Amino acid sequence: MSTREIGVAIIGYGGMGRAHSFGYAATPVMAALPVRPVVRVITGRDAEKVAAAARAYGIPEWTTDWRSVLDRPDIDLVDICTPPGTHAAIAASAAAAGKAVMCEKPLATSYAEARAAVAAVDEAGVLNAIGFNYRRLPAIGLMKRMVDDGAIGDVRLWRATWLSDEFTDPSVPFDWRFERWQGGTTIADLGAHLLDMALWMVGPIAEVAAQSSTFIRQRSVPGGSRNVEIDDASAGLITFTSGAQGRIEMARSAVRRPCDFTVELNGSHGTLFFDYARLNELWFGDGADRMDLYGMRRIRAEHPTHPHASQLWPIGQGIGYGESFVDQVADLMHAWDAGRFDPDFAQGARVQAVCDALELAARDRRWVRLTEITEAAVAPIGRPAD
Amino acid sequence: MSTREIGVAIIGYGGMGRAHSFGYAATPVMAALPVRPVVRVITGRDAEKVAAAARAYGIPEWTTDWRSVLDRPDIDLVDICTPPGTHAAIAASAAAAGKAVMCEKPLATSYAEARAAVAAVDEAGVLNAIGFNYRRLPAIGLMKRMVDDGAIGDVRLWRATWLSDEFTDPSVPFDWRFERWQGGTTIADLGAHLLDMALWMVGPIAEVAAQSSTFIRQRSVPGGSRNVEIDDASAGLITFTSGAQGRIEMARSAVRRPCDFTVELNGSHGTLFFDYARLNELWFGDGADRMDLYGMRRIRAEHPTHPHASQLWPIGQGIGYGESFVDQVADLMHAWDAGRFDPDFAQGARVQAVCDALELAARDRRWVRLTEITEAAVAPIGRPAD
Amino acid sequence: MSTREIGVAIIGYGGMGRAHSFGYAATPVMAALPVRPVVRVITGRDAEKVAAAARAYGIPEWTTDWRSVLDRPDIDLVDICTPPGTHAAIAASAAAAGKAVMCEKPLATSYAEARAAVAAVDEAGVLNAIGFNYRRLPAIGLMKRMVDDGAIGDVRLWRATWLSDEFTDPSVPFDWRFERWQGGTTIADLGAHLLDMALWMVGPIAEVAAQSSTFIRQRSVPGGSRNVEIDDASAGLITFTSGAQGRIEMARSAVRRPCDFTVELNGSHGTLFFDYARLNELWFGDGADRMDLYGMRRIRAEHPTHPHASQLWPIGQGIGYGESFVDQVADLMHAWDAGRFDPDFAQGARVQAVCDALELAARDRRWVRLTEITEAAVAPIGRPAD
Amino acid sequence: MSTREIGVAIIGYGGMGRAHSFGYAATPVMAALPVRPVVRVITGRDAEKVAAAARAYGIPEWTTDWRSVLDRPDIDLVDICTPPGTHAAIAASAAAAGKAVMCEKPLATSYAEARAAVAAVDEAGVLNAIGFNYRRLPAIGLMKRMVDDGAIGDVRLWRATWLSDEFTDPSVPFDWRFERWQGGTTIADLGAHLLDMALWMVGPIAEVAAQSSTFIRQRSVPGGSRNVEIDDASAGLITFTSGAQGRIEMARSAVRRPCDFTVELNGSHGTLFFDYARLNELWFGDGADRMDLYGMRRIRAEHPTHPHASQLWPIGQGIGYGESFVDQVADLMHAWDAGRFDPDFAQGARVQAVCDALELAARDRRWVRLTEITEAAVAPIGRPAD
Repeated sequence: MSTREIGVAIIGYGGMGRAHSFGYAATPVMAALPVRPVVRVITGRDAEKVAAAARAYGIPEWTTDWRSVLDRPDIDLVDICTPPGTHAAIAASAAAAGKAVMCEKPLATSYAEARAAVAAVDEAGVLNAIGFNYRRLPAIGLMKRMVDDGAIGDVRLWRATWLSDEFTDPSVPFDWRFERWQGGTTIADLGAHLLDMALWMVGPIAEVAAQSSTFIRQRSVPGGSRNVEIDDASAGLITFTSGAQGRIEMARSAVRRPCDFTVELNGSHGTLFFDYARLNELWFGDGADRMDLYGMRRIRAEHPTHPHASQLWPIGQGIGYGESFVDQVADLMHAWDAGRFDPDFAQGARVQAVCDALELAARDRRWVRLTEITEAAVAPIGRPAD
Repeated sequence: MSTREIGVAIIGYGGMGRAHSFGYAATPVMAALPVRPVVRVITGRDAEKVAAAARAYGIPEWTTDWRSVLDRPDIDLVDICTPPGTHAAIAASAAAAGKAVMCEKPLATSYAEARAAVAAVDEAGVLNAIGFNYRRLPAIGLMKRMVDDGAIGDVRLWRATWLSDEFTDPSVPFDWRFERWQGGTTIADLGAHLLDMALWMVGPIAEVAAQSSTFIRQRSVPGGSRNVEIDDASAGLITFTSGAQGRIEMARSAVRRPCDFTVELNGSHGTLFFDYARLNELWFGDGADRMDLYGMRRIRAEHPTHPHASQLWPIGQGIGYGESFVDQVADLMHAWDAGRFDPDFAQGARVQAVCDALELAARDRRWVRLTEITEAAVAPIGRPAD
Repeated sequence: MSTREIGVAIIGYGGMGRAHSFGYAATPVMAALPVRPVVRVITGRDAEKVAAAARAYGIPEWTTDWRSVLDRPDIDLVDICTPPGTHAAIAASAAAAGKAVMCEKPLATSYAEARAAVAAVDEAGVLNAIGFNYRRLPAIGLMKRMVDDGAIGDVRLWRATWLSDEFTDPSVPFDWRFERWQGGTTIADLGAHLLDMALWMVGPIAEVAAQSSTFIRQRSVPGGSRNVEIDDASAGLITFTSGAQGRIEMARSAVRRPCDFTVELNGSHGTLFFDYARLNELWFGDGADRMDLYGMRRIRAEHPTHPHASQLWPIGQGIGYGESFVDQVADLMHAWDAGRFDPDFAQGARVQAVCDALELAARDRRWVRLTEITEAAVAPIGRPAD
Repeated sequence: MSTREIGVAIIGYGGMGRAHSFGYAATPVMAALPVRPVVRVITGRDAEKVAAAARAYGIPEWTTDWRSVLDRPDIDLVDICTPPGTHAAIAASAAAAGKAVMCEKPLATSYAEARAAVAAVDEAGVLNAIGFNYRRLPAIGLMKRMVDDGAIGDVRLWRATWLSDEFTDPSVPFDWRFERWQGGTTIADLGAHLLDMALWMVGPIAEVAAQSSTFIRQRSVPGGSRNVEIDDASAGLITFTSGAQGRIEMARSAVRRPCDFTVELNGSHGTLFFDYARLNELWFGDGADRMDLYGMRRIRAEHPTHPHASQLWPIGQGIGYGESFVDQVADLMHAWDAGRFDPDFAQGARVQAVCDALELAARDRRWVRLTEITEAAVAPIGRPAD
């Protein structure tokens, strides 16, 4: 137990704060680590709730002043689990204070903000990480490895769909998720994970077309109602710089779809398919297989040879959502001394650029080149001053 | 056996000619029919092959002159199973000869041609039918019925994907399927079925955006190679006039995907999902279900209460592709005396308009309104004179 | 169309009579045949119903006197689709009349009867066939071929379960299916197919233990009720002579299980699994696969290289129940001139011996060796004189 | 963090020791607890390995003398994760020392031993728990609740199969798992979980028949080989005292089956099915459903209304094996003050009685009544003196 401790402050006590807390607590039991994370404090705006969260997650201290943790010498890592609209500013402050930063996705609610966050961590020279936790599932890690190893040849088609029913019920009241500059968009909330996988596995995106809808346009607030500022559902067409094509959809309007995402890659020599509802499986259609075995393999993506799997459970027992955070913390601790984590803020910003491009393409009903976003002097879709 | 006979001529002896032959032979054993189809002749350009086909399909006569069958008084129905580029002209001739016409999909290789075929059958006042056979699968019929019955409320999202591996192998030589004006496009070949379902279940389409790729641009011909004239893979975004949104993809570039299509509808109160690889199942997520039963039902779409199922097999035994032709023939015979079949040529043309719109949208990289196609004096993508 | 005709008489107009009629009608359109079946007459005890069936199935003649067809020179093949209790006697008469015989399973309702039927066809020297139609599904044929080819090594474990809900409803009235000597047993009705596959793929059975239950012991008859004479559900343990072990279950007591059977083989080097609800798939776990591909392949059992598949539909389109009868008829016609069909009555009797052994083992609560059945001078479970 | 601490000693550092360690570390982050477990020490026979395990699992102390922890006042709970053959004796010692005891399954390697362990905890009056962790999966908990609530009516049939490939490779050397009195049997190792579910959901078992095989009879030891003392695969037929029937199979001889268990219940009004490979799903066939919805629901067994689920992750994210230990620890802490846990040692012994009965039935080739085991003065299958 003499391993060097990494002091962690978690900013935000909601569902993601809980999942990250789980990751820090469980990882030292699961994985051999060079340094050991210790969550020292959790912060939140509501004193009663953050106090309860500290008790619930087994964290010894809490505060309502997130800035106060930046001065503490016993805090090495600031882990940001607040609503998206606050990510970039907190991250910049933490970096300026010399802290390593782990930030939940999306990195920001616009590419301009995201770039500012990247600039801040670059300036400070601190380790920075973005929470694309699904990369750490063995099945997704294996998918990436197989693409890189040429198992499917040149990628030609990529498609991904994320369906949830979060917004199907019109009686769900207005909250920050429906505010453009707090919650981002459905494109970013669901799509960020998918786009990260696309960029990671297929490469840069050249241009996009898109379409968005808000089916329930007003939601209740105490004493009245308020206009929903974001999309319920969006879809996009993608051209990768490699020439591959992609199709993406994200919707929070799909009844009895709790959180179902699928990703498929069709290459010149094979196909890979993943369905998150059955997250321990990766489907592989191998063009080199004997024709009398025509079909796909259901790879049980828990084999010790698969990414991260050897530090999880015996094959067949079943890996869950929680393990993605275990693997993320383990990789973060292993990256600690080198000071670089993959994916970092730059990758978070890269994803945000695509989200912005999709939003712009839907608004303007035209194809948008990524360079329109990344080379813009100002954000293409402007955030109002606070 | 005194039922009145309907004399049938099948034009084209390929795979579809075979499937239709099966339908005519098997239906009288399966379904009670008011009139009885009798295939009298099959036609094709290659004498040897059409003769072999006649033997193989149990058809008593064959000829290489399809026009000759139009004069025969013992032929009541002309069933067109040739390559798409020839559909409209044959259909018009058959109609002019006073014959009822069943035409395989797509109705034509352009909306202009399709409209001409509609005009011909309207002028002649003959029964006309387009071969969207998948409508006749009990699972698809049930999907339609449930949408109409309000089982999922207002349709908000429709998505469909058709994946095959027909064109993945670069050594597949050039043939008529790769010619724009013979084979149509991948949009039309695979997408026509999907678009028909969209129009049938969700309603008219207002506008589309799209993207197309040809990954293998040249294919061999004897002594050389030839440019492929069509798309290997395409995708589209759709706005229905109802405000619903749709996403469609069709690709013949997907290794180890033999003929896998999926269709999903998300409505305000429920979800329906169909996967052709498991064609006896329809998935239903009912928003009115008790929350502790959250999930979807796997309806075994072979129950006698389901469309067409009572004339097929006992539930659980398994319906296949062949039965779609049995049901199509049965419905055609039941429609005989009324002289109207659903779907008819007008619906085939309606589908073709969307195919044209998708092709144009992909070419011009912009949203295309359907009225641009349907109100055009000339076809938007012109067919060269023969 | 000059192919020699085989005149067929179908005995029995129920569901199996219909399925066989379909097979005879559809096969000449699907498969190249050396001789061509023509159904000339159908028989049944109820004149009105058999007349209706003749019309429905497109058969030109009907009669209530099945014996009358035995004298007809234009009848070459007698196809028996009556209740099991009548199979053996009709088969013996047909054989004595020199007719080839196709008999639906089970061959009889006891091994003694089945042996008598075998003796009759042997004596007459006629082609004889037993209707284990599921053997003709490409997936099942492929399973057999892969076992024979050593794909899974030495078979160690075989398991099969057949679940239906036919008898779950206590208001289903008494009919011949509940009579021991008319309907046989649930062991025989559902289990015969499974046991045939076991014997075919794994080899002879040495001994069995078993258990049977009748959950609903009385069923209504007009004016009262009658004791159910057979099992609702049974299960057995099997020792093959090879040393492999088997487990079998068959139940008509499983709510919302329409006709779901599964078969799995575990060999020294691999696993094969089949689920009839998804009959176009065969699952193969190959022990020789790379460990990072650990899992099973979902073989799409419609590839032209698979048994029978080349005469069916393009891969991915979906084969159904009907095609099992097409393949059965095709194989029967191909076997015609040789005069031997596989499986024949001897194999039907072999299956019936295991059914008897399971019934005896359940009744006497002990392991029963197959030789107790096959070497008995009299049937171990005696049928009362008519 | 002022919650009262429960000091835990883990006996055994293997896979189960690791899983239990995970449970103790992760639970306080996931679930609100009345008392808080703190693992203080881990023990094992090999100093080097147990020291490494202490480091890996984040446990501050280790020792090779398990008896030493029994004297420590800071240890309240002894958690036994050693090979089965040692369970009962350690449990008895811990109970005698006044410690609460959590014991991994199986409780012992014979019913006689298991009874002795029950007697020891009863005598000492200590809280005692048996590690049937799968009961704590939401899907399994929901299955139990639905059975109790009458969702499927009277249970008629129960079937369960557990397949692994642990023993398929003949080059796996001999170790304690192959020793009858250390590892127990495959019946007990895999079957104990299934039998516990059977007893829990269906009720007491009256009698059993069974069959066992050892396909690989010798395994290597340094310098030679040794006879395998247990079964590779076994199966049983079960009669419940309610009249329901059961079938069970457990095999470590199934290639490419990593740890696949399935459980199905058919009741008078419904069916429930669970497949551990997809552990977040419970299938429900409701006999009261409308016939046009015939089929089964795939319940996503992660809904907050499902047992334990509200303390896990949002629906659709995926629960894994680890969460079963979280839920087990949470329930244990909640049971702490009452001093009674379900399932307790008595239930562990009840399961062991069925394991013994199955083993005896297989050996003696006859039906065995459970009372033969539970009323025997001595164990029916004797363990040799150490």
